[in-house]
Amino acid sequence: MKKIVSLFVAGFVTAAALPALAQFAKPDDAIKYRKNALFVMQQNFGRVAGMAAGKIPFDAKVAAESAAVADFVGKLPWVAFGPETDMGDTKAKPEIWSNKAKFDDYAKKLQVELSKLDAAAKTGKLDAIKVAVSATGDTCKACHDDFRSK
Amino acid sequence: MKKIVSLFVAGFVTAAALPALAQFAKPDDAIKYRKNALFVMQQNFGRVAGMAAGKIPFDAKVAAESAAVADFVGKLPWVAFGPETDMGDTKAKPEIWSNKAKFDDYAKKLQVELSKLDAAAKTGKLDAIKVAVSATGDTCKACHDDFRSK
Repeated sequence: MKKIVSLFVAGFVTAAALPALAQFAKPDDAIKYRKNALFVMQQNFGRVAGMAAGKIPFDAKVAAESAAVADFVGKLPWVAFGPETDMGDTKAKPEIWSNKAKFDDYAKKLQVELSKLDAAAKTGKLDAIKVAVSATGDTCKACHDDFRSK
Repeated sequence: MKKIVSLFVAGFVTAAALPALAQFAKPDDAIKYRKNALFVMQQNFGRVAGMAAGKIPFDAKVAAESAAVADFVGKLPWVAFGPETDMGDTKAKPEIWSNKAKFDDYAKKLQVELSKLDAAAKTGKLDAIKVAVSATGDTCKACHDDFRSK
């Protein structure tokens, strides 16, 4: 077991020296984590949004599954916007850290909208899904406008 | 709404032409999706494994949260190993597609082990977590040995 576990935790040896990043072994891991979680979220949201826009044939089951995944994964990225994660391979603007309260509000709002989208998708009603997709997309866009570099 | 939705679904316009990849707009998206989901899973599993190995101080709440995320996200990558996703920026070996049944068995086994890890972490008992981490890590390694290029 020791050998196998070491495959997975090698990066964590220094974690104790970085209390602000206790969740991640190093800042680059946090940056990759939030980008990866956001991509997984976006792929699932995008599928539902594509159905709402008539670009993908509506499949209620796939829409419900995708919305549920987007809802769950949409809770994950935010812990990875910690201190020392403003530099590196990221489009995150410095304003995220200088105006953290506003950024956190967007993150919370997104989670509320994704939860509504999940509920709408579970009903199987495309009209309800369209409303929730629109509100979710608005939230994505508002946060990107303020906090993501082009 | 149209404008906002188009931000998210641009890539899906051609999806109808790729029925085998109905879940993804293009093969590269599928490859990125599975890699991103596996990274999110690994970060959460690695945190619990680090606690099991005594490399990270044991925190029952964080372990339970991380195991729950690993359990959920561990269900996501597999749909993205579809046809036409064997080429590109991937370490996936061709054997995944020529021996799909064996690969699928690993994927299923991992989900069983992650579900056991989730249950173990919910008990808050480090000894139970250690057993489940070991079984999960063995499954990761066995699949990587057979199906992932170095």
